[in-house]
Amino acid sequence: MIKKIERQVMDLKKIIRNIPDFPKKGVVFRDITPLLKDAKAFRYAVDMMADHYQGVKIDAILGAEARGFVFGAAMAYRLGVGFVPVRKPGKLPYQTCTVSYSLEYGENILEMHTDAICKNDRILVVDDLVATGGTAKAKADLVQQQGGTVLGFCFLIELCFLQPRKVLKDYDIFSLIQYESE
Amino acid sequence: MIKKIERQVMDLKKIIRNIPDFPKKGVVFRDITPLLKDAKAFRYAVDMMADHYQGVKIDAILGAEARGFVFGAAMAYRLGVGFVPVRKPGKLPYQTCTVSYSLEYGENILEMHTDAICKNDRILVVDDLVATGGTAKAKADLVQQQGGTVLGFCFLIELCFLQPRKVLKDYDIFSLIQYESE
Repeated sequence: MIKKIERQVMDLKKIIRNIPDFPKKGVVFRDITPLLKDAKAFRYAVDMMADHYQGVKIDAILGAEARGFVFGAAMAYRLGVGFVPVRKPGKLPYQTCTVSYSLEYGENILEMHTDAICKNDRILVVDDLVATGGTAKAKADLVQQQGGTVLGFCFLIELCFLQPRKVLKDYDIFSLIQYESE
Repeated sequence: MIKKIERQVMDLKKIIRNIPDFPKKGVVFRDITPLLKDAKAFRYAVDMMADHYQGVKIDAILGAEARGFVFGAAMAYRLGVGFVPVRKPGKLPYQTCTVSYSLEYGENILEMHTDAICKNDRILVVDDLVATGGTAKAKADLVQQQGGTVLGFCFLIELCFLQPRKVLKDYDIFSLIQYESE
């Protein structure tokens, strides 16, 4: 049995900065840079996210550029697993597979190396924030294209009012911080 | 006295993939994605880079998007310090300071939040690779603009034949892996 580590609870929302009307009017941007800068808060956030996966077999963590690299890499180190970067087109030098998905305006493309994931690899997808879940779903599609299994999604922040769990209904989701409204 | 941890030496060059003529003819791209994917190699690389700073007072680690976020965040977690992200223009939501610097063709701009670094903060700049040192120097300029001190640069890979230590001659530099030619 894995012994649960008791951590003193930190209220991370207090050090997330709310920026109204960024990147556009009516949206409150949740700025995590003060949390990243705070050594205790950053460590606590990574530990709490990682704790959720104690005893779970993970082959690699996947994170997309740029912000997904921060918690993705730190969690990969913390959990002692590999890290798979997903990037914008043209950045990865080897043979790639791609996924395209719709955004509010236009579409976006993500790339991953074809040898980044082996058949049946168990992949945890990590990001700092989930909003509608569209980008997260695209990452799952990339993993599955290569024969991997998405064992779950792990987010620092979940914008619950945008209902990402609807789009990601087939997956296990863990988020450390939830916002119920803008 | 800090006790040095003895680690079994890993030859990381063996799992770095060499891609000829990427991103342009004559350049050998050092692809670290196989290293990142290898749990033991990734952990070893982060530990070896972090070991170099045992006992050194660091206030935060600075890394620039996107690749600088990978080792930057993992080392910040490992060393128990904060992480300061430097980004491309328009990505950071709060008040920013900027630095522009010349590339082979054209120029590039980097941004950082003005409150990311306090006066006299001791900052370690981390990246996966240093080539000519131009981008690294720009990051040092950002830190110093805000009154911080660059205690050093830490790179996974140093392309020695591009002589980054000339441009970075005023700084302490540690690199884990060196290439003496293309």
